[in-house]
Amino acid sequence: MRQSELFARTRREAPKDEASRNAELLIQAGFVNKESSGVYSYLPLGLLVLRRIEAVVRQELTSLGAIEMLMPALQTKDNWQATGRWDTFTDVYKLKDSSGKDFILGPTHEEVITPLLKNFLSSYHDLPISVYQFQTKFRDEKRAKSGLLRGREFVMKDLYSFHRTPADLDQFYARVANSYRNVFEQLGLGRYTYLTLASGGAFAPHSEEFQVITPAGEDTIHVCDNCRLAINSEIVNEVSECSGCHTPVAKLRVERAIEVGNIFKLKTRFTEAFDLCYKSESGQLERPVMGCYGLGITRTLGVLAEVLSDDGGLVWPEAVTPFDLHLLILGPENADVRAAGDKLYSDLGAAGWRVLYDDRAVSAGEKFADADLIGLPRRLVMSAKTLTTGQVEVKQRSSREVQLMFPSELLGR
Amino acid sequence: MRQSELFARTRREAPKDEASRNAELLIQAGFVNKESSGVYSYLPLGLLVLRRIEAVVRQELTSLGAIEMLMPALQTKDNWQATGRWDTFTDVYKLKDSSGKDFILGPTHEEVITPLLKNFLSSYHDLPISVYQFQTKFRDEKRAKSGLLRGREFVMKDLYSFHRTPADLDQFYARVANSYRNVFEQLGLGRYTYLTLASGGAFAPHSEEFQVITPAGEDTIHVCDNCRLAINSEIVNEVSECSGCHTPVAKLRVERAIEVGNIFKLKTRFTEAFDLCYKSESGQLERPVMGCYGLGITRTLGVLAEVLSDDGGLVWPEAVTPFDLHLLILGPENADVRAAGDKLYSDLGAAGWRVLYDDRAVSAGEKFADADLIGLPRRLVMSAKTLTTGQVEVKQRSSREVQLMFPSELLGR
Repeated sequence: MRQSELFARTRREAPKDEASRNAELLIQAGFVNKESSGVYSYLPLGLLVLRRIEAVVRQELTSLGAIEMLMPALQTKDNWQATGRWDTFTDVYKLKDSSGKDFILGPTHEEVITPLLKNFLSSYHDLPISVYQFQTKFRDEKRAKSGLLRGREFVMKDLYSFHRTPADLDQFYARVANSYRNVFEQLGLGRYTYLTLASGGAFAPHSEEFQVITPAGEDTIHVCDNCRLAINSEIVNEVSECSGCHTPVAKLRVERAIEVGNIFKLKTRFTEAFDLCYKSESGQLERPVMGCYGLGITRTLGVLAEVLSDDGGLVWPEAVTPFDLHLLILGPENADVRAAGDKLYSDLGAAGWRVLYDDRAVSAGEKFADADLIGLPRRLVMSAKTLTTGQVEVKQRSSREVQLMFPSELLGR
Repeated sequence: MRQSELFARTRREAPKDEASRNAELLIQAGFVNKESSGVYSYLPLGLLVLRRIEAVVRQELTSLGAIEMLMPALQTKDNWQATGRWDTFTDVYKLKDSSGKDFILGPTHEEVITPLLKNFLSSYHDLPISVYQFQTKFRDEKRAKSGLLRGREFVMKDLYSFHRTPADLDQFYARVANSYRNVFEQLGLGRYTYLTLASGGAFAPHSEEFQVITPAGEDTIHVCDNCRLAINSEIVNEVSECSGCHTPVAKLRVERAIEVGNIFKLKTRFTEAFDLCYKSESGQLERPVMGCYGLGITRTLGVLAEVLSDDGGLVWPEAVTPFDLHLLILGPENADVRAAGDKLYSDLGAAGWRVLYDDRAVSAGEKFADADLIGLPRRLVMSAKTLTTGQVEVKQRSSREVQLMFPSELLGR
């Protein structure tokens, strides 16, 4: 894409009404726009990153045999009364339609997927079932001051699984945990991410969260470096030691962290509420056990901005960068430079590279600053000077070193 | 995909609570699930079609130079008051957050995109700008009895364009109209679709709609077969003849139809409301003119089900079919048949075909009926009988003719 055609450009100054580093950076770099507290628009660059995060997650879940679908935001009061959560689930938006019927704007979808499966689940042959969606969720957050880390309208991946036995659920749950590790590894967050024992809420004594260490996090976790496990401070009084190596809790390192994923064994909490059952081999009606697994997509965008950025701006990992290469021409008023830049842009595209081409008539300093702010993994610079040898300056975003390369060397993938 | 692993299977009977043919068929075939009036879940097959409709539209809009982004559903009362539509826009959901602040669940996004561009538009160099999104919209429809043709929660593509001059808007508008024609042509709806003169609402004397002829439609249009143009009955008293060939309105054919797209010249209606302006070549502040262009994605799914189906079920066009081929094995308890089916399924996948593989242990009659109901363009049948010659029965969905082919003939694309 030609940067001259990208309407959502970088801003000279950080926005004044953002307290969080991630939103400040993403706004200044032209990835998101703030609409109201906790509500953002995703500008072209931001949307590209979101779609790539989704693609990484989708690939992992597909390899588990999970199937994608899409459920609605508008959920009926009836279903939420069936589970007893209409009055107890906090921070939700409720609304009435013109006939006076009550709805909730879904913060989660157990109340949709479980009754939906009553139309499809009949025999033990049908199990296990695992389905997921990338869907826009809503929560009426009282304090939405952490940018994309805590949105009022946000995209989640939510996966639900249904099994014949707790042992089968356990096995699937472990595979999901492994998939999540793969996702965060690919996103460059692996070394900051800890599987963390946390409160189980209404469902179970404990659940597990994936927590990424960052000072911007809203949680406190107790980290065991030996085992790469952690314990959420909310339950630290209930456990005495790291479940891996038995190090006493008091000796664990205390860190601020943000939850990017959580995995729950819901057992029969929801399948009972909706009387979901299946016929066993012996013809008995049995209750399936259920798991649910969330992963915040827009939150992960915020975490990447928060954790992987530096003083110059954003730093995208290869797996989710909006473009692979940032091609800059310096002195575009020089017809030779412009022609060489246009040709390289076109050749790189034909070779399968996704290129952001800074063809704008602005100063070299502004181009360099914007390239750092936008944070693509590799920057290529062409100028009258580099043209004398027919070469291009190549720099990795996270390095200061500049290398000279011939275009032909760049075209291979 | 193996059909044995597709949890969202066909239903033996049509649902009893659906008055519309499109929802009835899509539910029975396992493409959607009804959650409440006008609110549907998109099951795996339905979601695949939606994503393919989006891909067709995205390709057309990209070729116009339009850029994709994503705006939120939660929109502030302030912005809707600025345009005077807070009190006048009918059938919308409104809600309050916990602090008492008012929001509207967006039925359209002029109130987001226009103020958003104040952050980016400064000079005439920046124009034209055209941006679009695929986004979930909400309308509190009083009668939501037409299945996916009139949803309370639905996916729309909405495109907004901003120009220096009315002439530039006119030119872009004509290109969008042409893109829409291409979309409906690719979707197999071309011969049912008419560019229709309609009311301009608050903005202009007239707007234009793309109307698909179907008895399930909620509009009445007056069709000129010479020009492939139509006039919506809502304005038929204001015009005397077809704008193409001057045939008097009274001589036009009257048809029921459903609007699948609309294109509006908004002029400065919204850019004035938000005081959006740019600096001209002479340094003057000027007001950009604006267009907006909607295309219903979930509605188009409904229209395809309504218009292209037959007594046996759905009939998907190649461009948006959830899978290219439906491979059925008859008598899967025969190990040779199963092995041959498994091999062909794997070979077809490796050759780039997207295959739904009916490997279920059900009767041949059930498989044939389900294949018709699901409606993929080509059905392949393998059985002990076809194996004797090593061939496969091939049938087009819309034909009765069965052809025998060798697997090697199928593998080419």
